[in-house]
Amino acid sequence: MEMKLPGQEGFEASSAPRNIPSGELDSNPDPGTGPSPDGPSDTESKELGVPKDPLLFIQLNELLGWPQALEWRETGRWVLFEEKLEVAAGRWSAPHVPTLALPSLQKLRSLLAEGLVLLDCPAQSLLELVGSTHPRKASDNEEAPLREQCQNPLRQKLPPGAEAGTVLAGELGFLAQPLGAFVRLRNPVVLGSLTEVSLPSRFFCLLLGPCMLGKGYHEMGRAAAVLLSDPQFQWSVRRASNLHDLLAALDAFLEEVTVLPPGRWDPTARIPPPKCLPSQHKRLPSQQREIRGPAVPRLTSAEDRHRHGPHAHSPELQRTGRKVPWYPSDFLDALHLQCFSAVLYIYLATVTNAITFGGLLGDATDGAQGVLESFLGTAVAGAAFCLMAGQPLTILSSTGPVLVFERLLFSFSRDYSLDYLPFRLWVGIWVATFCLVLVATEASVLVRYFTRFTEEGFCALISLIFIYDAVGKMLNLTHTYPIQKPGSSAYGCLCQYPGPGGNESQWIRTRPKDRDDIVSMDLGLINASLLPPPECTRQGGHPRGPGCHTVPDIAFFSLLLFLTSFFFAMALKCVKTSRFFPSVVRKGLSDFSSVLAILLGCGLDAFLGLATPKLMVPREFKPTLPGRGWLVSPFGANPWWWSVAAALPALLLSILIFMDQQITAVILNRMEYRLQKGAGFHLDLFCVAVLMLLTSALGLPWYVSATVISLAHMDSLRRESRACAPGERPNFLGIREQRLTGLVVFILTGASIFLAPVLKFIPMPVLYGIFLYMGVAALSSIQFTNRVKLLLMPAKHQPDLLLLRHVPLTRVHLFTAIQLACLGLLWIIKSTPAAIIFPLMLLGLVGVRKALERVFSPQELLWLDELMPEEERSIPEKGLEPEHSFSGSDSEDSELMYQPKAPEINISVN
Amino acid sequence: MEMKLPGQEGFEASSAPRNIPSGELDSNPDPGTGPSPDGPSDTESKELGVPKDPLLFIQLNELLGWPQALEWRETGRWVLFEEKLEVAAGRWSAPHVPTLALPSLQKLRSLLAEGLVLLDCPAQSLLELVGSTHPRKASDNEEAPLREQCQNPLRQKLPPGAEAGTVLAGELGFLAQPLGAFVRLRNPVVLGSLTEVSLPSRFFCLLLGPCMLGKGYHEMGRAAAVLLSDPQFQWSVRRASNLHDLLAALDAFLEEVTVLPPGRWDPTARIPPPKCLPSQHKRLPSQQREIRGPAVPRLTSAEDRHRHGPHAHSPELQRTGRKVPWYPSDFLDALHLQCFSAVLYIYLATVTNAITFGGLLGDATDGAQGVLESFLGTAVAGAAFCLMAGQPLTILSSTGPVLVFERLLFSFSRDYSLDYLPFRLWVGIWVATFCLVLVATEASVLVRYFTRFTEEGFCALISLIFIYDAVGKMLNLTHTYPIQKPGSSAYGCLCQYPGPGGNESQWIRTRPKDRDDIVSMDLGLINASLLPPPECTRQGGHPRGPGCHTVPDIAFFSLLLFLTSFFFAMALKCVKTSRFFPSVVRKGLSDFSSVLAILLGCGLDAFLGLATPKLMVPREFKPTLPGRGWLVSPFGANPWWWSVAAALPALLLSILIFMDQQITAVILNRMEYRLQKGAGFHLDLFCVAVLMLLTSALGLPWYVSATVISLAHMDSLRRESRACAPGERPNFLGIREQRLTGLVVFILTGASIFLAPVLKFIPMPVLYGIFLYMGVAALSSIQFTNRVKLLLMPAKHQPDLLLLRHVPLTRVHLFTAIQLACLGLLWIIKSTPAAIIFPLMLLGLVGVRKALERVFSPQELLWLDELMPEEERSIPEKGLEPEHSFSGSDSEDSELMYQPKAPEINISVN
Repeated sequence: MEMKLPGQEGFEASSAPRNIPSGELDSNPDPGTGPSPDGPSDTESKELGVPKDPLLFIQLNELLGWPQALEWRETGRWVLFEEKLEVAAGRWSAPHVPTLALPSLQKLRSLLAEGLVLLDCPAQSLLELVGSTHPRKASDNEEAPLREQCQNPLRQKLPPGAEAGTVLAGELGFLAQPLGAFVRLRNPVVLGSLTEVSLPSRFFCLLLGPCMLGKGYHEMGRAAAVLLSDPQFQWSVRRASNLHDLLAALDAFLEEVTVLPPGRWDPTARIPPPKCLPSQHKRLPSQQREIRGPAVPRLTSAEDRHRHGPHAHSPELQRTGRKVPWYPSDFLDALHLQCFSAVLYIYLATVTNAITFGGLLGDATDGAQGVLESFLGTAVAGAAFCLMAGQPLTILSSTGPVLVFERLLFSFSRDYSLDYLPFRLWVGIWVATFCLVLVATEASVLVRYFTRFTEEGFCALISLIFIYDAVGKMLNLTHTYPIQKPGSSAYGCLCQYPGPGGNESQWIRTRPKDRDDIVSMDLGLINASLLPPPECTRQGGHPRGPGCHTVPDIAFFSLLLFLTSFFFAMALKCVKTSRFFPSVVRKGLSDFSSVLAILLGCGLDAFLGLATPKLMVPREFKPTLPGRGWLVSPFGANPWWWSVAAALPALLLSILIFMDQQITAVILNRMEYRLQKGAGFHLDLFCVAVLMLLTSALGLPWYVSATVISLAHMDSLRRESRACAPGERPNFLGIREQRLTGLVVFILTGASIFLAPVLKFIPMPVLYGIFLYMGVAALSSIQFTNRVKLLLMPAKHQPDLLLLRHVPLTRVHLFTAIQLACLGLLWIIKSTPAAIIFPLMLLGLVGVRKALERVFSPQELLWLDELMPEEERSIPEKGLEPEHSFSGSDSEDSELMYQPKAPEINISVN
Repeated sequence: MEMKLPGQEGFEASSAPRNIPSGELDSNPDPGTGPSPDGPSDTESKELGVPKDPLLFIQLNELLGWPQALEWRETGRWVLFEEKLEVAAGRWSAPHVPTLALPSLQKLRSLLAEGLVLLDCPAQSLLELVGSTHPRKASDNEEAPLREQCQNPLRQKLPPGAEAGTVLAGELGFLAQPLGAFVRLRNPVVLGSLTEVSLPSRFFCLLLGPCMLGKGYHEMGRAAAVLLSDPQFQWSVRRASNLHDLLAALDAFLEEVTVLPPGRWDPTARIPPPKCLPSQHKRLPSQQREIRGPAVPRLTSAEDRHRHGPHAHSPELQRTGRKVPWYPSDFLDALHLQCFSAVLYIYLATVTNAITFGGLLGDATDGAQGVLESFLGTAVAGAAFCLMAGQPLTILSSTGPVLVFERLLFSFSRDYSLDYLPFRLWVGIWVATFCLVLVATEASVLVRYFTRFTEEGFCALISLIFIYDAVGKMLNLTHTYPIQKPGSSAYGCLCQYPGPGGNESQWIRTRPKDRDDIVSMDLGLINASLLPPPECTRQGGHPRGPGCHTVPDIAFFSLLLFLTSFFFAMALKCVKTSRFFPSVVRKGLSDFSSVLAILLGCGLDAFLGLATPKLMVPREFKPTLPGRGWLVSPFGANPWWWSVAAALPALLLSILIFMDQQITAVILNRMEYRLQKGAGFHLDLFCVAVLMLLTSALGLPWYVSATVISLAHMDSLRRESRACAPGERPNFLGIREQRLTGLVVFILTGASIFLAPVLKFIPMPVLYGIFLYMGVAALSSIQFTNRVKLLLMPAKHQPDLLLLRHVPLTRVHLFTAIQLACLGLLWIIKSTPAAIIFPLMLLGLVGVRKALERVFSPQELLWLDELMPEEERSIPEKGLEPEHSFSGSDSEDSELMYQPKAPEINISVN
């Protein structure tokens, strides 16, 4: 007769497809096959293959206190990792990798070999067996009701189909010799308070015996529990039909254990859970592998280990134009609570970006554009892109490279006394034309030649310009508001009234009563007072004196605001990895670090009320530049032939736009994000070209895809497995690909134009601090920076990078030095009058990279950079890493390769 | 015939006593027995017992390239940890804990069991055996000369007696079945280029065979090498007489290995070397243990695990007055190069301390004392103490508690319009009297009642006062140098000349040519100019106007200096643990963080040349207070009865001095520093009392032992084992206990009085920044702060502290809350007019701690604090930690307990 408890039915059938141990998922997704538009929602079950065995929760109950006060007590539990009960502290230890002593495993084996093994035992017989031999958990937990078990936080984490396994171990002095028993129930039963959480129990392991020296039964019990928590052993033991199978499974486990030598490792040290579990796939026995479908290794070739080798994006580049079938789902997929928080997050990031870039643009172009244009342009261009583009997760935004170019273009046009906006309109028209040509010729495939070397050069130069500009602008403020040194002549200011005897009487009439001390000063003075300059002017006088134009304290206060906003933003960014506060708070503080830093700066400024320079914002809804309409006139005051000459700078800008847009697109469409709906390299560039035309005509900023905000957008839409065992990291399942969040973000940005009057309270030094932060953050995100740091580290202290395992240090340093030299050259060109040609020089990096093939071997370039299309073809697939044949590094590196890939590059400063 | 190579003789005899693997030393020093004065220099050999086996260097040579290009290549090496050759990168990996697969160990065992085992084989037979079977290392290393081997950096690290063991493994397709051989030479021989370093080889392990799937021979070779690198196996195999012994040693190794389950640990992950190796003592077989003397466990009882439980210092407290026999060695022991660098380091620290505390004292006492007094007092008192004291490593210095008290005493004397220095003299006389009474009554034993609870309350209060004062003084500067807000009336300043028409002509005569712009301003003005106030006064005019007293920019610039010096000092402190620069540079930057921060601040200040407030230093060698001689008059203007009334504050100060001095002495004499010459609790207090009298009479600052500088002094005199294997941390051997370094430091400090004129360039805000840094550093060094941080951490993210393993979290929080409440109460008292009684309140903490016994169990107090003398006696030795009987945490905690103990407390802000 089978015991059936409420809720027990169907446990076998309702296996939990979303709650599998980490690592098992890794082995399945098939990067080769494209998505089928008719079935975008069944990807999960597809990924997982056939139903799996239920998750097993294992608990160790020990019999303590022989002979006086017998008591069963739970002393350990396992799902993926071990948690030990800290008896005195009354809490569970942090999850850690279990370590065992070899003899306890061997003793367990011999005990089971001689003991009782009941497989597929009906629950009834178990009760006969167990009920009589051990006094069921006595004192503490008897009264703990089932309700409490269900409220156990662990219970809420475990997936619905989970089962329990219980190890019962301890000393019973009256037994003559140790007794081992292993029971597998045919149908699992919920056994009251035996397990900590109310799960149906499937396995039992009983280890009792006479008193033994040391902690024999404890260790043996732990060994049994660790064994049961092993997925491979679970698989085997669920299918075992006799004692022989059980022992074979145990021996298979022993075959694969990792052994640490006793003199070099303290067995009591607790190892924290590794970042990634080893793949279980290669451990599966052949029949298991067949059930789960053919083995497709996650990484198919050596190059794929790298961030985004050409292999990673080449399929995407041929798949443009198949976006229509996804269109309805692009809106329906957004119906999830997560999308609301994503909208809020990305909206704040976008508005912050619009403010900072608008401020910078206004600065760089003497107000030809400004914050208002930035808001309007972001809203219009962003929304249009979200509706039309191939990759709807992309957030269009002002980016560093384009800003840098615009600054140069403005100073160029000023040098030639051009009317800036009409000239800029023609540049835009030409850029759009060139970009459309690039689309028509499918030039996006050239992206394959932009290796990491080019990307990093691009990013490093832009970041450095940002840092330089931020610091430069800050120092410029000390010229505008000079510091008064002792003995400097810029001291003193008088307020002088027009003519002798002229308006004196009027001034005496209007002077306020509380200014008596000033009045007492004009003994012997005629027509002058010590009123501060603004008040003086208001009263009809003229401020006179070397000190009239100096505003004290502003320079240092601006510097303080600058440093405060920079360091505060940096510090908040680091809060994410601190131990303090719940993770929601930490994530919030870190994600909104720029917003909070700006708010702090504004608060400080408002508190002291000094006349710091503020962000320039028009009072009403009209262009920042006084006296122009929204539509830019096509020629203005410029001679007609400048509209043709604009083609030259437009060519340079096109290169920049192409590089910026396509590199970002490549990063966003990397394989590790598991996008289902495909990319749209050509379509996206087409959209950018059209929007270029529109924004140029309206005198709005130019826009391309922004790496960082788009990545943040994707990150806020991650789908992850929810239930996870203690110590396990959640599994990444995919991204909610849809157009709605982006669209709403830009509609909100548009509505925020009416916030503009509030923005004039933002001090410029605060924005400069944020620019500095953006530059530093972008610079520190690239591998190049890490290699530069290696130059300063003694070899002994260098981190264990994969790179350093495979390339001699001198070669690494040589590569870094060449990159540094290129960067130096770019910087020199940027500092000459020919600065505007820097996009061409960036493109020149591709040539330098090509030349590097003569200096470095393909193997070295594979690790330091990535391969160009020709190189790939020139190398036989197997011969890439010859050292493997010697010492087998292919498997040695595996742990590092399994680590989830983070975006290593921050190409656009935004 | 035995081969004898030059330099080979005597390797067996000249075993290297100072170069033993870590952990083995730990088990030997006997804390119970005192040092014998007649033999202080033979401590090393005493510590080490009988000569030990030589260190073994193990190398794995693999035969690669079968069948075409046979080549022997070294692929791994072991001393303590494994280093793997990264073939492609051509470098050795970072040392890591070796991990093995269990099957490879088992295969090795069976191969050896069936193979050839030659023990005590003469070298001749080895050559016959090895010479024929394998082609000696062919291509790469054949030409590498012996000279190069000797220059190998590893060779220079290995101790002189070291021997080599070589594992030779690989595939030889023509062999029918695998062949294993293990050879121990009777006398080791240097075998040319076989080993990487030119060491005499003792062991050989040969593993050759037909082609095998996977990396069989590589893994087996690694297993043999790891086995040979195990100290326990080495011990056994050196004494093995037959195959049986060898296999028994292998089995003993297997018995003790730690096993990691395959599904939870990637076997290819490299584990960095642990901070401390497990003690080898309990692994030694009985006969080995006998040879090395009776086993004295390093920690004798549970309490000794703690920083400095009463057990740790009680023997010291009874041993005062036995210092004379050590006296000659106190000077002779200083004859070591290390002492020179110690002198430089401690001198700079002492001078910095004298400057900062002198500056603070001058501030707090309106110049009654100052930097000059600080230098003079430090030199005189410090040198006298070094000559007389019981613990000659102690550095006497001004400390935070005494400074805080002096500040209160000064404001008290001002409230009663007292002549400060004479009143202070009487306080000093009374304090000296009370301290002598304390010495006579041997009151130092009361130190046992100052548990960590009291110490931390003491430290936290002083640190908070420091932080509060530093910030307060900084903010005060903004009152002295107000910020000019727009619309503020403090604007404008004129220079007015005495009478109408009086000196006008003279002024016009003296006006410089370059002040034309100012002159052009006096159109219509009579007898007035816009000269800056200082110049105006010089020229006989009077500055008039509301703005004459405001100096612009100073407030914000001071704030910048304050923040710069604080953050720079903090950042430099952290450089010590960064990866950049060689460790010498890092240590230098971190040790001299305050000096460098002060220098940076001075540089910034000098660069801008603003009139920031500077450190007040007399121009010549005379007391800072104008008009007093060096000797303080006994009564001054005070009524005579104040000399009696001074007994009351003196009582309070005595409590403070006693607590500060004795807590510091306890910390310095902790067992983990392994001091040989004993402490001198009573003698030291006596010296402090005498110096109290002297410094009061001269109006110099008061001095007690300073924890931090004294610890730094001891740290700079550490004796450590020099040669160490890759990945091993050096062993701590003891401290160079002598009086000379301290003496020289104070003589140099005395000579530095002539530096005083340079000191007037130090801006006060920089010093305030350093005070803030000292307060923050002291506060963050106590366990209390860590427990306060726990309040903000979700339980999941809390670090794995021993404390949290043994005490329930709510109890930990309760204890922290009580400490916080005590601190709040102390702070409130400190803010009332009764502030001066705060030392009494600090003593009150002992009472609070006593009362806590009713709230917390002794076990909890043991972990949260430490036990008071009565509690110790009330608890049976074995019953201290009852949870051990359940789950055996005594061994679980072992790893954490072996960690070297750092001073956890920073009791004096200095």
